[in-house]
Amino acid sequence: MQVTYQRDQLRLSMGGEDLLVHTPKSPAFFIGYGREKMEMYCGNFEIQDYLESREALRHLTVTDREAGMQLELRRHKDDDLQLSINVRLLEDGIQLDIQNVANDINRFWMRLAADEQEHVWGCGEQMSYFNLRGRHFPLWTSEPGVGRDKTTYVTWQSDVVNRAGGDYYNTNYPQPTFVSSRRYFCHIETYDYADFDFRQGTFHEMQVWGVPATILLRSAPTFLTLVEKISATFGRQPPLPDWVYNGVILGLKRGQAHAEKMLAEALNHDMAVSALWCEDWTGVRETSFGTRLFWDWRWQPERYPHLERLIAELRERNVRFLGYVNPYLCVDGSLFPEAEAAGYLATNEQGNTALVDFGEFYCGVVDFTDEAACTWFKDVIIKREMLDLGLSGWMADFGEYLPIDVKLSNGVSAKQEHNRWPVRWAQINAEAIAEAGLTDETTFFMRAGYSGVQAHCPLLWAGDQSVDFSRHDGLGTVICAALSSGLMGNAFHHSDIGGYTSLFGNKRNAELHMRWAEMAAFTPVMRTHESNRPTKNTQWFDDPAVAAHLARMSRIYVSLTPYLKQLVSEGSARGIPVQRALFLHFETDLECYDIQDQYLLGPDVLVAPVHQAGHLDWSAYLPHGVEWVHLWSGEHYAGGQRVTVPAPVGKPPVFYRSDSDWLALFTALAGQA
Amino acid sequence: MQVTYQRDQLRLSMGGEDLLVHTPKSPAFFIGYGREKMEMYCGNFEIQDYLESREALRHLTVTDREAGMQLELRRHKDDDLQLSINVRLLEDGIQLDIQNVANDINRFWMRLAADEQEHVWGCGEQMSYFNLRGRHFPLWTSEPGVGRDKTTYVTWQSDVVNRAGGDYYNTNYPQPTFVSSRRYFCHIETYDYADFDFRQGTFHEMQVWGVPATILLRSAPTFLTLVEKISATFGRQPPLPDWVYNGVILGLKRGQAHAEKMLAEALNHDMAVSALWCEDWTGVRETSFGTRLFWDWRWQPERYPHLERLIAELRERNVRFLGYVNPYLCVDGSLFPEAEAAGYLATNEQGNTALVDFGEFYCGVVDFTDEAACTWFKDVIIKREMLDLGLSGWMADFGEYLPIDVKLSNGVSAKQEHNRWPVRWAQINAEAIAEAGLTDETTFFMRAGYSGVQAHCPLLWAGDQSVDFSRHDGLGTVICAALSSGLMGNAFHHSDIGGYTSLFGNKRNAELHMRWAEMAAFTPVMRTHESNRPTKNTQWFDDPAVAAHLARMSRIYVSLTPYLKQLVSEGSARGIPVQRALFLHFETDLECYDIQDQYLLGPDVLVAPVHQAGHLDWSAYLPHGVEWVHLWSGEHYAGGQRVTVPAPVGKPPVFYRSDSDWLALFTALAGQA
Repeated sequence: MQVTYQRDQLRLSMGGEDLLVHTPKSPAFFIGYGREKMEMYCGNFEIQDYLESREALRHLTVTDREAGMQLELRRHKDDDLQLSINVRLLEDGIQLDIQNVANDINRFWMRLAADEQEHVWGCGEQMSYFNLRGRHFPLWTSEPGVGRDKTTYVTWQSDVVNRAGGDYYNTNYPQPTFVSSRRYFCHIETYDYADFDFRQGTFHEMQVWGVPATILLRSAPTFLTLVEKISATFGRQPPLPDWVYNGVILGLKRGQAHAEKMLAEALNHDMAVSALWCEDWTGVRETSFGTRLFWDWRWQPERYPHLERLIAELRERNVRFLGYVNPYLCVDGSLFPEAEAAGYLATNEQGNTALVDFGEFYCGVVDFTDEAACTWFKDVIIKREMLDLGLSGWMADFGEYLPIDVKLSNGVSAKQEHNRWPVRWAQINAEAIAEAGLTDETTFFMRAGYSGVQAHCPLLWAGDQSVDFSRHDGLGTVICAALSSGLMGNAFHHSDIGGYTSLFGNKRNAELHMRWAEMAAFTPVMRTHESNRPTKNTQWFDDPAVAAHLARMSRIYVSLTPYLKQLVSEGSARGIPVQRALFLHFETDLECYDIQDQYLLGPDVLVAPVHQAGHLDWSAYLPHGVEWVHLWSGEHYAGGQRVTVPAPVGKPPVFYRSDSDWLALFTALAGQA
Repeated sequence: MQVTYQRDQLRLSMGGEDLLVHTPKSPAFFIGYGREKMEMYCGNFEIQDYLESREALRHLTVTDREAGMQLELRRHKDDDLQLSINVRLLEDGIQLDIQNVANDINRFWMRLAADEQEHVWGCGEQMSYFNLRGRHFPLWTSEPGVGRDKTTYVTWQSDVVNRAGGDYYNTNYPQPTFVSSRRYFCHIETYDYADFDFRQGTFHEMQVWGVPATILLRSAPTFLTLVEKISATFGRQPPLPDWVYNGVILGLKRGQAHAEKMLAEALNHDMAVSALWCEDWTGVRETSFGTRLFWDWRWQPERYPHLERLIAELRERNVRFLGYVNPYLCVDGSLFPEAEAAGYLATNEQGNTALVDFGEFYCGVVDFTDEAACTWFKDVIIKREMLDLGLSGWMADFGEYLPIDVKLSNGVSAKQEHNRWPVRWAQINAEAIAEAGLTDETTFFMRAGYSGVQAHCPLLWAGDQSVDFSRHDGLGTVICAALSSGLMGNAFHHSDIGGYTSLFGNKRNAELHMRWAEMAAFTPVMRTHESNRPTKNTQWFDDPAVAAHLARMSRIYVSLTPYLKQLVSEGSARGIPVQRALFLHFETDLECYDIQDQYLLGPDVLVAPVHQAGHLDWSAYLPHGVEWVHLWSGEHYAGGQRVTVPAPVGKPPVFYRSDSDWLALFTALAGQA
């Protein structure tokens, strides 16, 4: 990258092409003032902006500084100073630190030069679109929506009944960071609501509802090194615990007897089982919406009478036990009064404990801006109630739900803490585990995220997909989620096998379960979920064919262990994701830039999951420059073409490089299956 | 109104309260630049704006001028002149003429001071909300949408299948004019896309995508005189022809034999019939969507073999014959080649005739900016083919459909002509009738409108409601339509009895037909419509009870003639609408400001139509200060209260003032029914 300037112009270029250009006629920075209206209902937000002003900062004065320069920006010559920006030249880019801001600015826009062919990816974990070009992406952690497509019945009903249908950009994990096909990344350091707009032909425009502290633009010679830099910026994950590779994590939530019985049944099917994940370890409550978990984060013996013994017995059999936790405490639980008495809960306008309605039960919000509250949550809940009990991991749910009207002890508005909350939540979980010295053998998985969650959350899960093949909320979306979050330095990703959300008559069938399971076998972690309506949806234990399929896939997953371990180790050390966008290894094959329904499992394996119903064969794009071998048939194909292969259930379209060091493993795996 | 100013401030007040205030800290005018994206599909528009800048014009210089002053507006002291506005002081307000505009301004905002309690109404013909406060209203003539409520199945399916579901603000007839409860009106003279925003507590903000020529603010001591002024500004309608009062206009579209048979059947029911309205007089075509009209505006004998004779015979029996016309010519008709050869049709980018897809058939767009084309349309189509044949009126359909990508002979972009098109279309119809000397006895009805349509369109019809009782597209919406358009000086309004749009399983039933008919009996014009799917929807001639009800209502309507004629005469002379918002006569009763499902039929009659299904009684608000008599029971009620009266089908809730000069008429009418 190269920076040049003259009196009133600044030009940052990369390989001779403009990246950040500011001239009086074509300014790069805009300021303004707006009044937003934000309404939250169960983690979904309706957000409107009334924009009072948007003014270009046309007048620039540049002063040389050590290792950079100082920009003074005004709307016009005689204007008061509006923004002062310290530019630091880095070896591979620039860092803009915004230092002085005039009053009454709460909107900020910055433009970067774009070209028509350019692709951009990232913005956190995106479910609908991997290439972000042509759309804008509001960045605000929230529920991702049910259906996410206004043309579907499920979305329409979710909107009508719960205002929860969502749209293409809704995500649990937004991040104001994008990667360009020009081999740079742009990160804006802020927790404010942001909206990145990639609809214009000649520029990208990043909007922030506040003035960000820092803007980082860094380039790299290759996409892989770019991802390494991103990951170095936001933090890396520890390797997954070794027990993960022992097989599938079985999601069960019908009490101890059922869990033990299902494990026996799984083993009868020769299923490789690494853990039982029993969300209901803290008990349940009945509501008119169905059975819900009891949000008091300690073992409740009613449902698991001998849990300590069970955990110990399971561990002897090399099976771990996982639980569930979230940042809320139900008012009728035992922990709520303790937290309330200690002043660890967020308050409302009146100074009383803020109570959040989660549907026929109310909860307090643990105030993670209060150091003492964090310590209590770590010591009492995670270390004492969870780790001491013998849990080897859990779903660390929510994180995206901080109501924007509560009062927090650090004095920062909840609106400004909202996007940060997933990071705080991840940090509490990770620190508690580290303080217990159990990082090597414990994991937890989160759906919520934001810049910096990478340093704390060891494993993402893709959230609550609908139990279907739908374009914007079904099986296919978790591939896009893995690819986009992977570019942000989240090396490990997985999803609920079979999806989660079953509403408005939408029910999981055997085909979906099997297609999802056979994809999951080629991801870092396999885990089933009974869904939100366990008895209304196909479970592996209700259908011998589905059980046999899951068992076979679990064995295939286990067979991949040596290869997976190497990828996980690389992910942990360098931040390169296990599931990779095709272009990470095929930079010059432009076809790869738009593919969001296939991924590379490490450098050698290409996975093209069947994400639609009713297919017996499937078309996959094989990147250029390599010879590919179809896993099941052993058929060889030249790269640089789209091929159609048989893809009956049980034989997901998987290919490996014919020059791989792992040929023996792949051929053995195909033979075994 | 009073205007004061000092060096850099301007203050227009009304009765001591601010109306238009400009100070450097709180400017009233903003300019900006935006790039809109507009997409049309069959009269529905998707409109987005990318806003590049929005800047306050804080710096004002005021210079005295004769009968007013000159405003020079800049963003800051050293700025180039941005806007120059000539302020003319009127007796009752001010007129702002914007004279000089800097380059690169295509967005304009103006604020008026508002108070929290204030109500605003108008903005053309609004279907969903009479009081506009709390919402914003894009003003762009278009299809109004099918369903207009994202929570209904019909809207959802219309959106999914045709992108045609619409929303609360979509209307065939927008107008950048509003009436405030502070007894002033504001009109912005422009054809550009506009958006009036009434969501803010302390100001109203009017946005225009262009810089308007003129802004008019005028006050009046009463609402009635305010409406008179509005009507004087935009033009008044001739009285309705006398034959209208002879009874209901029967909408029939199954050819001559059917029309004659249905007339006989109607007369058997003692129905008072003023006219047959046969849309299909020009023939039909079959499409996969069903039977459509043949858009070649001349009698086609196939369907009406002896139309001339029929019209003559009907006229002898005191029954008129009405037709249908719209501004398009189908390519397979006889008029298209004639118009094309003469160069009367709009062209496309390539200079060829622009062809518009209307669903399996294509049409040319007659170019109404070409004087010769207008003359041809008037002389050949309206005078020769329609009036000479003996038509006494017609539906002048469309007007809101000018595609924004055609080329017009006056060189103005179609985008800028779009909102004007309904006015041009109305003018052609009115002028042709006037040139034929038939204004007294001919009428036509339009759904599309814009500022100025009042001078040409003698009768509005409320457009294409769904055949149901739904909140945003059913029976109740036509009351809101009559009230809002009435305030804009459209004195005469009516609607399709039973609604029009039957889609996605939504079908008209007998109850809806009867509730609609009994409301229509208390409007200026009664007219039935077979709907878009005649054989799938209840028709009066398919159900003797519905026929008998319609017949009785037609007789009631006829009995109202003397009263109606006086109202029509007043409407024509003063612009006061026949159907009036309650507050027009009850200014001090604030309850009346929010009522949009009742109306006054002239000063003496209050109509509270039953606009929901399944009611046997109905609650109505009776304005304060008057004693009201329930039409059917003769029961007396004090005003200023909400009362519930029996309202079985056939006895719509109607009340009259106990001090009316028309008591004899009302009691006779009740006795007769």
